[in-house]
Amino acid sequence: MEEKQLTFSQRHAQKFNGALIEMISMALFAYGIVCSEGKDGKIALAFFGSLALCAPISGGHINPAVTLAMWLTRQISTGTCLLYWIAQLIGAFGGGFFCYMVLGQINSPMVTDLNFHWIIADLCGEALGSFSFILMILIQCKFSKQLKGNPKTTFSDKPIASIILITLSLHLSRCYTSHSGGCLNPGMAVALELFQVLKTNEVERLDSMWVFIAGPFAGAIVAVIFFKLIYQPAFNRYYKNA
Amino acid sequence: MEEKQLTFSQRHAQKFNGALIEMISMALFAYGIVCSEGKDGKIALAFFGSLALCAPISGGHINPAVTLAMWLTRQISTGTCLLYWIAQLIGAFGGGFFCYMVLGQINSPMVTDLNFHWIIADLCGEALGSFSFILMILIQCKFSKQLKGNPKTTFSDKPIASIILITLSLHLSRCYTSHSGGCLNPGMAVALELFQVLKTNEVERLDSMWVFIAGPFAGAIVAVIFFKLIYQPAFNRYYKNA
Amino acid sequence: MEEKQLTFSQRHAQKFNGALIEMISMALFAYGIVCSEGKDGKIALAFFGSLALCAPISGGHINPAVTLAMWLTRQISTGTCLLYWIAQLIGAFGGGFFCYMVLGQINSPMVTDLNFHWIIADLCGEALGSFSFILMILIQCKFSKQLKGNPKTTFSDKPIASIILITLSLHLSRCYTSHSGGCLNPGMAVALELFQVLKTNEVERLDSMWVFIAGPFAGAIVAVIFFKLIYQPAFNRYYKNA
Amino acid sequence: MEEKQLTFSQRHAQKFNGALIEMISMALFAYGIVCSEGKDGKIALAFFGSLALCAPISGGHINPAVTLAMWLTRQISTGTCLLYWIAQLIGAFGGGFFCYMVLGQINSPMVTDLNFHWIIADLCGEALGSFSFILMILIQCKFSKQLKGNPKTTFSDKPIASIILITLSLHLSRCYTSHSGGCLNPGMAVALELFQVLKTNEVERLDSMWVFIAGPFAGAIVAVIFFKLIYQPAFNRYYKNA
Repeated sequence: MEEKQLTFSQRHAQKFNGALIEMISMALFAYGIVCSEGKDGKIALAFFGSLALCAPISGGHINPAVTLAMWLTRQISTGTCLLYWIAQLIGAFGGGFFCYMVLGQINSPMVTDLNFHWIIADLCGEALGSFSFILMILIQCKFSKQLKGNPKTTFSDKPIASIILITLSLHLSRCYTSHSGGCLNPGMAVALELFQVLKTNEVERLDSMWVFIAGPFAGAIVAVIFFKLIYQPAFNRYYKNA
Repeated sequence: MEEKQLTFSQRHAQKFNGALIEMISMALFAYGIVCSEGKDGKIALAFFGSLALCAPISGGHINPAVTLAMWLTRQISTGTCLLYWIAQLIGAFGGGFFCYMVLGQINSPMVTDLNFHWIIADLCGEALGSFSFILMILIQCKFSKQLKGNPKTTFSDKPIASIILITLSLHLSRCYTSHSGGCLNPGMAVALELFQVLKTNEVERLDSMWVFIAGPFAGAIVAVIFFKLIYQPAFNRYYKNA
Repeated sequence: MEEKQLTFSQRHAQKFNGALIEMISMALFAYGIVCSEGKDGKIALAFFGSLALCAPISGGHINPAVTLAMWLTRQISTGTCLLYWIAQLIGAFGGGFFCYMVLGQINSPMVTDLNFHWIIADLCGEALGSFSFILMILIQCKFSKQLKGNPKTTFSDKPIASIILITLSLHLSRCYTSHSGGCLNPGMAVALELFQVLKTNEVERLDSMWVFIAGPFAGAIVAVIFFKLIYQPAFNRYYKNA
Repeated sequence: MEEKQLTFSQRHAQKFNGALIEMISMALFAYGIVCSEGKDGKIALAFFGSLALCAPISGGHINPAVTLAMWLTRQISTGTCLLYWIAQLIGAFGGGFFCYMVLGQINSPMVTDLNFHWIIADLCGEALGSFSFILMILIQCKFSKQLKGNPKTTFSDKPIASIILITLSLHLSRCYTSHSGGCLNPGMAVALELFQVLKTNEVERLDSMWVFIAGPFAGAIVAVIFFKLIYQPAFNRYYKNA
């Protein structure tokens, strides 16, 4: 399959297409997370479904931290990055709303103790999990225009392998966050927590929301730095450019 | 492998072959569901076995809602559609009968509460699960004559990848139906419930049977519409036709 | 990789090589079964390990019922069949002995109730599970000289796909045997039960041993008949011979 | 991808690159083990992540016993072997320190009973598990320069298949060690136990540490011997060298 040469207006249509599908995927993932009742395997499956849906069209971010990493590695423009962030927030919020209307339940990630040491453990877990998740995406992805990453370091150039590897990577990265419960997704955290606060007025939940924003974004930034400064040069010492 | 040019009578032989193998697969799947005792992983494995058995010959529907989606996308004729539906019902009923004779047990999906809000949640779960399941089939399948779907959007053109992806898709779609227990299969629901009513006279089970018929069929129709109107055009904006 | 042209003595060396590796795999599988403490996933993993070890050399039977199916489809000679059976029995017995010496524990499949209906359910489960397991092997396998099966019906011609598919097939076939506990392997049943009887003198275990022999062998015979009379002709109606 | 012709200093840079990435992977794996709370699936996932990170660069040992097997089969030099051992110890110790600082918890493998029969069972389990794990690596690996193993016996020559197979192999090998808890990794055992002793002064833990060192190393040596003397010759009797 060859990619089309695009005119200006076509590129805009693409961008909005991508944002639309990101929104739908995010809503579906939010619904899947609420249905999973916290079971790790079900969360991974729900992510797999959402990723398979949007990966060929939007690049399959479903996570503002991934969008940030893609912007930092210059695979998407600043405009696309902002558009995706908004779409992701709306999708997660809409998914939470749908869950609440249909299932009558909602849950959002939360730091259970505001003790300093506990917050540090949560923050480290979120950052390390996001680091591992996003590093795998940077190493592997060669999926579509937005996600092509570094073709030199990919494990497999098949779309289906990318989707399965990234799902596995989310699944394993959530293991590193045993302390915080493993959100790794600032968009999901913000939208679900805001929704829950609007519904239940548990305003104290917002006190620790920054952990689920700062952790993943910090992980994304460190992953990009590690990939550029350590992984790629070490990799290149072994293999010539194809 | 090239497909044969078929004469009129050969095409009829094919159709009945397909219906026969659909019936056997449906019976095997019904037996697997009863044996699974509701464990999600075992249901997925039983589906995998039935799908691997019939996919190369009948196209691997094992579900009237999938057959409907295939008919809506004009991959099977109206006659084949009706024949498959009958074969699926007979297969599921026979599988239920075999389970009852051999294992002395039977279970069928049921709405546990006739409260309006509960039924809406069950119906939405069934419809959303079927939507996700059938959308994946439409995106991926390029398996055999009946299931070839859209070659442009497939993730992998290997039969084994199709079988595994569709199994994974059923597994994840059942996550979306945490409320209703996840049947997603009108044929299985009708046959097992009728069988159970015949045996135990619990006629009140039939009151909510429409949920397990309407949900999956609605999901199938929405999946076909979404695929045709949103997914495919968005996909085509990125890739030329091969 | 091409297969060598073999002289008479080389063919004998091959046969004994195969029997030796079958014996080692069977012992390893017996040890894995005892270690698994009945967990389905661990049994599948132990089978995967044993299969990966012996598949390239002996064809990967590790089960007298599979050996029977291979003999019925004329993929191995009568001599090889008998030699493999003896090797499998010795291997399972040796594995049981090793477990007993090292771990101080042993367990073997057993029919828990000699009531007629119970035994029929166990027998049907064993036969149906073996049918499903061996049918998948016949459809898929194109692995090595002994297991090449029908190249026309294979899902994937990669050795690794064969090993994973056959492991999955055992895993799902064991789902069909929820009643009897899922042995599907006459060699394992005979060797472990004999060993347990020798150690503990629970002679009454032998009363129901025939179920674990007759079930799998009946399943193997039915699988070969189904494959030859129904599956292959139906398959051939769609595809020309390559 | 072709491998570069290397100068003397480049080869040294490679070696230290490999050691660095081994150290990081080992620390990440140690963190994953502590987070897993002993769940087998999570340990396998954590191993998968560490392996995917270091395999393309260092060859993916993350285990002194694997490094020993690679040295015995002359795939790495004596200097690289020693360097990797030191890097692995430092990595595991650092990972344990990080866990203790962040999560406030640490756990290390331990023989729970110093009774002679119990220790023999633990030792056999560790040795057999390591044998199975390292044999699979020797059969499969063709991953990078250090791990290319025997191209003739590989199941699949795709990097991603190697990583998944080796992860599966660790997962199944840990099944064989149900008695000792399944460490299979002398570096992890030594570093985590030393760290725990330093923190908690439970000096009696050191009494049985030799089991977790001797078992895996013995398994590695037996795996190399079995591979060279039995598996490869049997394999070669069937297939010509490509």
